[in-house]
Amino acid sequence: MQIRQGNPHLITRSLSPENQETPIQFLSNPVTPEKLFYRRNHFRYPFLSDDNFFLSVFGSVTRPYHFSIRDLFNFPAQTIETVLECAGNKRSKFEPKVAGEQWEDGAISQGIWRGVPLRLILEQTGLSERAKEVVFEAHDKGKHPGYPQPIRYARSLPLAKALHPDTIIAYELNRMPIPGKHGYPLRLIVPNWYGMASVKWLKTIRVIDTKFQGPFQTDDYVYYPKDQKPFPVTAVKVNSTIQKPLNLAILEKGTHEIKGVAWSGSGEITKVQVSLDSGVNWTDSTLTKGSRYSWSSWRHEWKAEQEGEYKIKVRAVDSAGFIQPDKAMWNKKGYGYNQISEINIKIK
Amino acid sequence: MQIRQGNPHLITRSLSPENQETPIQFLSNPVTPEKLFYRRNHFRYPFLSDDNFFLSVFGSVTRPYHFSIRDLFNFPAQTIETVLECAGNKRSKFEPKVAGEQWEDGAISQGIWRGVPLRLILEQTGLSERAKEVVFEAHDKGKHPGYPQPIRYARSLPLAKALHPDTIIAYELNRMPIPGKHGYPLRLIVPNWYGMASVKWLKTIRVIDTKFQGPFQTDDYVYYPKDQKPFPVTAVKVNSTIQKPLNLAILEKGTHEIKGVAWSGSGEITKVQVSLDSGVNWTDSTLTKGSRYSWSSWRHEWKAEQEGEYKIKVRAVDSAGFIQPDKAMWNKKGYGYNQISEINIKIK
Repeated sequence: MQIRQGNPHLITRSLSPENQETPIQFLSNPVTPEKLFYRRNHFRYPFLSDDNFFLSVFGSVTRPYHFSIRDLFNFPAQTIETVLECAGNKRSKFEPKVAGEQWEDGAISQGIWRGVPLRLILEQTGLSERAKEVVFEAHDKGKHPGYPQPIRYARSLPLAKALHPDTIIAYELNRMPIPGKHGYPLRLIVPNWYGMASVKWLKTIRVIDTKFQGPFQTDDYVYYPKDQKPFPVTAVKVNSTIQKPLNLAILEKGTHEIKGVAWSGSGEITKVQVSLDSGVNWTDSTLTKGSRYSWSSWRHEWKAEQEGEYKIKVRAVDSAGFIQPDKAMWNKKGYGYNQISEINIKIK
Repeated sequence: MQIRQGNPHLITRSLSPENQETPIQFLSNPVTPEKLFYRRNHFRYPFLSDDNFFLSVFGSVTRPYHFSIRDLFNFPAQTIETVLECAGNKRSKFEPKVAGEQWEDGAISQGIWRGVPLRLILEQTGLSERAKEVVFEAHDKGKHPGYPQPIRYARSLPLAKALHPDTIIAYELNRMPIPGKHGYPLRLIVPNWYGMASVKWLKTIRVIDTKFQGPFQTDDYVYYPKDQKPFPVTAVKVNSTIQKPLNLAILEKGTHEIKGVAWSGSGEITKVQVSLDSGVNWTDSTLTKGSRYSWSSWRHEWKAEQEGEYKIKVRAVDSAGFIQPDKAMWNKKGYGYNQISEINIKIK
């Protein structure tokens, strides 16, 4: 009888609210299964009732409307494979350390979402001339510092992003109804932006003619750098993760595969470079491009011929010309870490 | 419908061989369930055959014997609740970094083991006058650097430790047959020593009149400090882990519970002290002692009245007078990390 090898699991950061990350080093599939899809919550899970199966659209619109799920199913559907990355992914790597959930590399997953382009919904309701932003309010709520009463999770998008044809109100993840923990039954999906924009358990859509001032817009999800004015967290930065070998592994002399993923919210990945000598020389890795919003895979064959310690660095470049920096931009709340990826390996 | 909160899981360090750690911060029970019991392997899991259900005892004994499991069931049984800690637990905390599995706090679990005192078995076989050590060879095997052929996992104990009444050949964990991944059907359990001594899938017991020279005895599981001669890894060092709050958590002003566990292989825990000011002042926490070989729980109520950043330190003291040091003894292979535990907390 052979004892079965074990499986990778979600990595628990906290349980109430639930925050667990994907074991990204051990993913073999370009689509993350539900079991390993990262979970990120600000509050306890919402209680689901009949109310969840309706979506109200109102505010600066010409024809406010209360959509049922059935109404949404009647719109033409759009399917999008996309990376979803928490703005706090890799927060644990900042130096000096930043308080908050100590995400390592796994506050990121990839799924196939299907739903209605928000644009079609807003075409039906019409927009008033003064419309400026679209506010998405969710069913989950709880205590937030500075607020005496429980508040709901809510975020806004500027009109241009809201009307982008790939911004969708999703009702499926990986060809199934969206799981409870990921926003059932309706979730906004905003490709190219960090995950805070992709509001789960969507309750209402309110079009406004001002700038939205909710705490998840103006306090959280804002970069507070050291010597710069604060500015909002929006697009995903060009980034990569080394899946193999594992950091601080001890390997034998011979040929080893170095591999991982790379992604960006500002264009497609055009190049992933590997340095085997702490960043002096760089070689292009072999790149397998993903679809428009999904991560690309890269690999490099390494002939490790001499014993010793190696610092291996990896940097991704995107079609907008962005490249991972030598040093991440430190910011008080620890968002957007995208410093050149590195591992230290011992060959013996 | 309420969406269920998630559960903690094992934290994957590697899958082949399988190494996964216990999510110790999220344990609520003094006994670790199988699902969350840490898994530590040098090789792939062994293939289990009829051969596994026999145990040969030979070498410097007067009456060599081939015991069946049934024979072992006929001896008087001993039940022991004990901490089992990998010598590499907390390796990831060493500075400078040490290569190898990057265990955090969870290469430790606690179980209730039941089996035959080894002493009774050796009384039956008798010991020759020159007997010096007892070698335990396991069913798991594989490639090891420097050996052309696959080798089996094997370790020895000095006679005195082998004859200790609480050193047992276990056949049960937590009132059930030992699970496959934890040594089914027979596992040596050596309380007070690091886990490498508690050989899984026990195959043979060989009494020798020399010093055992296997690679897991003389190369691995040896401390190689910077300015000292190498010496073997044996007893578990006095140690503690903070379970709550989590490192780098952001908490509100008010009362918070600081809690965790503490253990030692050289005596019982007599005191666990907490410092809320980076180690200037220390207060005794409230201690709930475990049984002889199990960890003790401790807790301290913290009234956090001022906003700011706090470094909280915790140190355990045992009845032999050992205390966690300010600085762990760095060693090349990263064993026995037991530096004073600390977390950084932000109150806002």
